[in-house]
Amino acid sequence: MAVYTDITEVELGAFLREYDLGELLSYKGIAEGTENSNFIVHTGSGSYILTLYEKRVEKADLPFFLGLMEHLAKRGVTCPLPVHRRDGAVMGELAGRPAAVITFLEGMWPRRPTAAHCREVGVALASMHIAGADFALSRPNALSIDGWKKLWSGCRERADEVEQGLEAEVAADFAALEAGWPSDLPAGVIHADLFPDNVFFLGDRLSGLIDFYFACNDAFAYDVATCLNAWCFERDHAFNLTKGTALLAGYQSVRPLSPAEVEALPLLCRGSALRFMLTRLYDWLHGPDGAMVKKRDPLEYVRKMRFHRQIGSAAEYGIQPQ
Amino acid sequence: MAVYTDITEVELGAFLREYDLGELLSYKGIAEGTENSNFIVHTGSGSYILTLYEKRVEKADLPFFLGLMEHLAKRGVTCPLPVHRRDGAVMGELAGRPAAVITFLEGMWPRRPTAAHCREVGVALASMHIAGADFALSRPNALSIDGWKKLWSGCRERADEVEQGLEAEVAADFAALEAGWPSDLPAGVIHADLFPDNVFFLGDRLSGLIDFYFACNDAFAYDVATCLNAWCFERDHAFNLTKGTALLAGYQSVRPLSPAEVEALPLLCRGSALRFMLTRLYDWLHGPDGAMVKKRDPLEYVRKMRFHRQIGSAAEYGIQPQ
Repeated sequence: MAVYTDITEVELGAFLREYDLGELLSYKGIAEGTENSNFIVHTGSGSYILTLYEKRVEKADLPFFLGLMEHLAKRGVTCPLPVHRRDGAVMGELAGRPAAVITFLEGMWPRRPTAAHCREVGVALASMHIAGADFALSRPNALSIDGWKKLWSGCRERADEVEQGLEAEVAADFAALEAGWPSDLPAGVIHADLFPDNVFFLGDRLSGLIDFYFACNDAFAYDVATCLNAWCFERDHAFNLTKGTALLAGYQSVRPLSPAEVEALPLLCRGSALRFMLTRLYDWLHGPDGAMVKKRDPLEYVRKMRFHRQIGSAAEYGIQPQ
Repeated sequence: MAVYTDITEVELGAFLREYDLGELLSYKGIAEGTENSNFIVHTGSGSYILTLYEKRVEKADLPFFLGLMEHLAKRGVTCPLPVHRRDGAVMGELAGRPAAVITFLEGMWPRRPTAAHCREVGVALASMHIAGADFALSRPNALSIDGWKKLWSGCRERADEVEQGLEAEVAADFAALEAGWPSDLPAGVIHADLFPDNVFFLGDRLSGLIDFYFACNDAFAYDVATCLNAWCFERDHAFNLTKGTALLAGYQSVRPLSPAEVEALPLLCRGSALRFMLTRLYDWLHGPDGAMVKKRDPLEYVRKMRFHRQIGSAAEYGIQPQ
């Protein structure tokens, strides 16, 4: 749920005169995304998404995010395409914020993903990893172990408010992850936030990926781990082996995982679960009451951390011998 | 800001199969309206608005609201047209709530209305009053004096929390309004909530009226009073005589006000200001913290009540002799 900034029709009209999109016909704030303000805009030439980047997004990162979308779209990964202004730029300023217009992608994110969806996501993730190989820009992952530590230092003292014993549990996980975190896995541009609400489908067919605002350079297998966490657990918190198998098979049909990646998968899953637990915990403890963003429960990801801790090998996620 | 109920693409797909709108392509919750959940839906045949009616709307009133839109649209008042299902109905059920699909209206509501906008609103309001004359259904105004009393009994005791002395001030207003409220003015179907966010423009041209969910039968001049309150005050709470003059001239260019209506206008404005103050006060005192609806300040309308109390005649709103 996110419209942090309202804009007037007068300022939007002026902003759009820098583009070649025809007359402004309507715009409505949409309840999607949590970091930025998003609007669906109709003009004489069609439907677009207008994004106002709010303070959580670093302005210096925007050329990476927008350039990546353009790069991927040109290589056949269906994602929104940033619209160029008459002066060639893909970014402007609106209501005092950096702002961009991107093409509107039809499709719906699956509220209850099936194994068929999971397979498609695996295929799309691997395709994105390959398509990103020759992207010229790079961006370190701000939410890798060092970033997690910063988040943790901001909520460690109050972690036990959420669940008794959580502080000690997370501290032990940090020790294990720091000791074993792999540094030499195949790496490149990853999406880093490929949750169901960032993947559109028309029926069972994947119609596009959106929201590249956490994209960065990191291990490909870490992106796979995030998808396993995001797509393959049920509402009762149980891991669904059928979905895990489908997601991994889809991925490997395009880009087979190396033995080192397979071996690292349980630790990567555990790290990725910690990462999402930490951002949720941080928002839970620090988010303003009454904000228009629904707070997400950190305990969902504590449960996933516990699941991954007891995994013996990646076979338990459904990985098949290649 | 309103998306109270999320829906799955599966249930929406099933719901839309009762309609003749082509394939479902996308849907996004929109941050407009405060009573219901609204989505912009793209199908093979175009853009639509899907509304899920939440608990504040009486299901028994929906045939009035939807029938009125259809009635007005057929008589040339640009407003959304309810889409009929294959079985002829204009209402279905989705996620356990009554739901309807209406056509998408291009246009933008003016964040900072000008006198030109005010004139157009006056014209449209009068046109709507005339077009509604032969509408077969009727609905009493649930938010007339009796309805205000109910609201007031639910917040009277705590009114002084908002401003010291407010309880006594409002009690005195109630006495004056009950003593003088006119009962024999020309009446018919009124919009009853024609605020700027319910009126769309393309440039200075009015492109449509939306949100008929407070529409009812009451005095036409009461609707004029509500528009004066909603359109003709500045952010510093001053009444803008130029805008008042424009709105009233626009109205009278289509439907001249009778001498009795003109005479009643100051009291009607005062009553309408009390009505919106009361709903805001009620929500202010009773609305849940952390809800996704922005609370509106009741004191804005207390100031308007005070303004109207010292008005000598409707000439001070800018009414011109006909």
